[in-house]
Amino acid sequence: MKINVKVPASTSNLGPGFDCIGMALPIYNTITIEETVLPGTGIEINVLNDNETSDELLMEHMPMDENSIIYKAVELLYNSIGQTPSELKITVQSQIPIARGLGSSASVIVGGLLAANELLGHPADEVALLSIATEVEGHPDNVTPSIVGGLVLTSLEDDGSVVYRKLDWPEEWQITVCIPDYELSTEISRSVLPKEVPLQDAVFNAKRMGMFIQAINTKDAELMKMALQDKIHQPYRMKLVPGLDKIMDNLKHEENVLGCVLSGAGPAIVVISQKNNLEKIKSIIKDTWEEMNVKVNIMTLPVETQGAQIINVNE
Amino acid sequence: MKINVKVPASTSNLGPGFDCIGMALPIYNTITIEETVLPGTGIEINVLNDNETSDELLMEHMPMDENSIIYKAVELLYNSIGQTPSELKITVQSQIPIARGLGSSASVIVGGLLAANELLGHPADEVALLSIATEVEGHPDNVTPSIVGGLVLTSLEDDGSVVYRKLDWPEEWQITVCIPDYELSTEISRSVLPKEVPLQDAVFNAKRMGMFIQAINTKDAELMKMALQDKIHQPYRMKLVPGLDKIMDNLKHEENVLGCVLSGAGPAIVVISQKNNLEKIKSIIKDTWEEMNVKVNIMTLPVETQGAQIINVNE
Repeated sequence: MKINVKVPASTSNLGPGFDCIGMALPIYNTITIEETVLPGTGIEINVLNDNETSDELLMEHMPMDENSIIYKAVELLYNSIGQTPSELKITVQSQIPIARGLGSSASVIVGGLLAANELLGHPADEVALLSIATEVEGHPDNVTPSIVGGLVLTSLEDDGSVVYRKLDWPEEWQITVCIPDYELSTEISRSVLPKEVPLQDAVFNAKRMGMFIQAINTKDAELMKMALQDKIHQPYRMKLVPGLDKIMDNLKHEENVLGCVLSGAGPAIVVISQKNNLEKIKSIIKDTWEEMNVKVNIMTLPVETQGAQIINVNE
Repeated sequence: MKINVKVPASTSNLGPGFDCIGMALPIYNTITIEETVLPGTGIEINVLNDNETSDELLMEHMPMDENSIIYKAVELLYNSIGQTPSELKITVQSQIPIARGLGSSASVIVGGLLAANELLGHPADEVALLSIATEVEGHPDNVTPSIVGGLVLTSLEDDGSVVYRKLDWPEEWQITVCIPDYELSTEISRSVLPKEVPLQDAVFNAKRMGMFIQAINTKDAELMKMALQDKIHQPYRMKLVPGLDKIMDNLKHEENVLGCVLSGAGPAIVVISQKNNLEKIKSIIKDTWEEMNVKVNIMTLPVETQGAQIINVNE
């Protein structure tokens, strides 16, 4: 049996929503799991790289052995029904840029889980899949949109369950994803975060998070502009993303720009804007980064409302 | 000229919404400002106490001289148009319990401002009134609902302006206000808050705040139950509100209870519940506090959708 799963990328955090806001994007990894005929061949993982990612980077972020996150995810699913995976050929066709803050690792985890779940005859429901995926990834804000699609508010609760609610992104707000040509591992990007933050900053973020959800519900652009700010992760990560401060500064007074935020742990940046003025926004980002010798890939994308999908099952 | 203003009480914070969520309640203070005829009599402030508050407590929390918050508010309004208040008789008819976390000071500030604004021929608009009231009070989460009514998400921005958005409280959620017979000054209740909080707690609160706003917008009781939690102010204030931990604990598994939170800086408690089971909830609170020799006044109240109102103008 051979299963193909297509999994969307995701952006997360979006300013105030550190570790709880995520949004699926129409860039995809395809994960294939195939039962191999020969016993004793173990698990083979291959990554077919459609990006310009170097092999070294690929090996670092997507190891193809038992340290692989996809292996861990698949193993946890098998374990949950008292089995151990064996004789599987896993192939990752990677289109989501690696180590850019676009949920590449989450998509691989989700793809592996969904394919293995299909192979095993659906022992896990959505709740179980979310829980395993979050256990492997460490936080639910990328795996949740990769599984269920759309924009989500999501939380890992104390009992290990993942709670989420879908939110309707206002169609008139454009999402422009800007991916620089350098990588930043989530591990490093998390290591610079402080253990404690000023109470005032905690209040600032809670308030912005409230504004964010209210703005989404009521399509309130003025409120969204206030909401898309953060004091608990972006300021600490600024030094790891050369150019971010300048881009934020250069976009600050630009008409129709509602906000400029780090995508996940970075270094990709997401700009939220109202219709029009898009070319101007893009050229500001391109020019700012190019002055620093950073090449950037800029894409204005809709929200991917569909989550991971099984696209092919060969008996 | 003699102006009467009726101003509602307010509860604030409501769990995750520290310093940004407030709700007007149908308990009122009436503030009267009268121009006195004799020049040189200065400003006279009287508080007519309808509560069981002792005169000592009243003097402590509502001084009747130039240290009075109502004097400060009125003075700031006069100053904003280049004038100084003189020859005014201010009377506060107080029905909102003092130093309980029900916005008594905010209501007095708001009442003074509105009456003085009427007296001066409306030099200040709502934006200006919110800004002055917040300057005197220090935070906008009580003065905003006292001025505009209803449930509000509110924020004091860096430029001194107050931003707010009204939210629709789901009718089917009951608000039960429980006022113990002891006082707690906001000053003391603020002094126990830490300067820094764990990053995880900041993330916890931001997430709950997002859930709170989403739950209100979609009348999602399951989500509200998760939302009505806090880690950045209530745990630190717990020791100042004897009984709060026990009441929270005793209500935790009670059917239809969505949450039990501190009202403002306390010591009053607000219980949010779905219809039914109200008598059981009340008796749990009453019994828990009575065991500690604390008398409690329990009222189930609707949201007061109307803000402060001028009820009488005598030329």
